[in-house]
Amino acid sequence: MNLFYVPELAPDLSGITLSEEESKHACRVLRLRTGDKVILLDGRGGTYTAEIAEDHPKHCKLHILDYTFEEKPLKEVHVAIAPTKNNERIEWFLEKATELGITEVSLLLCKNSERKLIKEDRFEKILVSAMKQSQRTYLPKLNALVPFKTFISEHPKGALAHCYEGSKSMLQDVIQPQGYPLLIGPEGDFTPEEVALAGDSGYDFISLGKNRLRTETAGLYACMLAISQGN
Amino acid sequence: MNLFYVPELAPDLSGITLSEEESKHACRVLRLRTGDKVILLDGRGGTYTAEIAEDHPKHCKLHILDYTFEEKPLKEVHVAIAPTKNNERIEWFLEKATELGITEVSLLLCKNSERKLIKEDRFEKILVSAMKQSQRTYLPKLNALVPFKTFISEHPKGALAHCYEGSKSMLQDVIQPQGYPLLIGPEGDFTPEEVALAGDSGYDFISLGKNRLRTETAGLYACMLAISQGN
Repeated sequence: MNLFYVPELAPDLSGITLSEEESKHACRVLRLRTGDKVILLDGRGGTYTAEIAEDHPKHCKLHILDYTFEEKPLKEVHVAIAPTKNNERIEWFLEKATELGITEVSLLLCKNSERKLIKEDRFEKILVSAMKQSQRTYLPKLNALVPFKTFISEHPKGALAHCYEGSKSMLQDVIQPQGYPLLIGPEGDFTPEEVALAGDSGYDFISLGKNRLRTETAGLYACMLAISQGN
Repeated sequence: MNLFYVPELAPDLSGITLSEEESKHACRVLRLRTGDKVILLDGRGGTYTAEIAEDHPKHCKLHILDYTFEEKPLKEVHVAIAPTKNNERIEWFLEKATELGITEVSLLLCKNSERKLIKEDRFEKILVSAMKQSQRTYLPKLNALVPFKTFISEHPKGALAHCYEGSKSMLQDVIQPQGYPLLIGPEGDFTPEEVALAGDSGYDFISLGKNRLRTETAGLYACMLAISQGN
C-alpha cells in the first residue's frame, strides 16, 4: 500500500487533508481514487490506515480507519557528522543511516570542513523518503549545522573518532544507550585542538579500524556498530 | 604520496613502466617529475616505494626502492549480491565495501533481477579506486555475474538473507571465517524456489533486522557485521 508522511496527524483525528504537494502525488502521480486505502505515518511511532474520501489533486481528503502505535526504541543512535564536500556523499549517509535505524543526526561545522552550507529541507526530504522506503515509524531527528564547539558544550560526552596516534577504545566497549553521540570529522579530520576540546569535556576516543575511511563511510560504520550492539 | 595500482608488480623487479593510462595520470594530471616518489600497490599485499626514473607521459619509468608485504587477512568477507536496477547503488556498495575490507564480491543473476548486464571493467575501477583511497593492500576479488543456481552449486554453503517468514539466525551466530558467502537478493527478493534451493544445499538463513533494507544497504550491512565480528 502507498505510504504518506503526515507529521500533523494525531490519534484523535477522524480525517485529514493532505498538503498540496502530497495531494498531487496521491491523485496525479499515483492516480489514487476515492475509496482507495493508504498508510499514513506521523514519524513519531504512529501508523494510520486511511481511505481516500475525496481524490482532489490539491486537497485530497482522507478518512482515518485505524491507528497503531510503536513505542520509541530505548536505544538512541545519534551520529554527529561534518557534511562532506561532495553533497551526494552526505545525502547517501542520511539515506542509509535512516534505513538502518539512526534516531538522531547532527551536522558539525569543523575547522577543516569544506562544506559550510547545507540544504536542510533537502536533507529532511531524504530522511522522510528513507523512512517510508524502509517502513520505519520514527523519523530521525535532524539538527541544524552548528560549530563544533557549540555541539560539545551542548553534548558534553560521547565518542569521537579521529585518525591521530594515541589511546583509543573500541566503540562497543564504551558506547552508552542514551546521550552518547558518535562524532565523525570532515575530510582532513578534526584538528588536534578540536580533539583536545572533546577530550577535556569527557569524550571517549574511538578507532574505526586501521584503514582510512571516507567521512560518510565512517559515519555509517559507526551507526551500524551502534545499531548492531546488543541485537 | 600518490598511489598507483600496478597488478603486474613482483618483488624481484627493480623497475617497471606504467601503462599508458597510468603514465598519463602520473605525468600529465599529477604532473609528477623524474625524481618524485610514489607508492605502488600490487593488490596482493605488496606495497612498493618507487622513484620516477623517466617522466614520460606515455611510458613513465619507475625505479623501485623498497618493498613491504602484508599477510592476507585470515578472515574472508565474501558478499554475493544481485546488482541493483539503479547502477549507482551497486557502485556505492562496491566502493563502501572495499573501504571497509570486503575480500570477495560475487554478482548474482536472480529470477527477480531487474539488471541482467553489468560493466565489469567499471566495477573493477571502482574497487581499485576505493582500495587506493582507503590505503588497503588487497584488491577484493570480483567475480563475473552468474546465475543464482550456478553460484549455489559452486558454493554449497553460506548465509542467505531473505524477507519471508520462517526460522532465521543472527549472522554473528552462524558466520564462518572462510568459504561462507553472504547472499543478498535483488529488489523483490529471492524467489521461494531460490530460497529452497539454497536451504537444500546447506545455507543458513539470516535476518538483517525487521525493517526493509534496500539491496545495497543490506549488502553493506551484512559486510559490516562480518567485518566487525571478532574485532
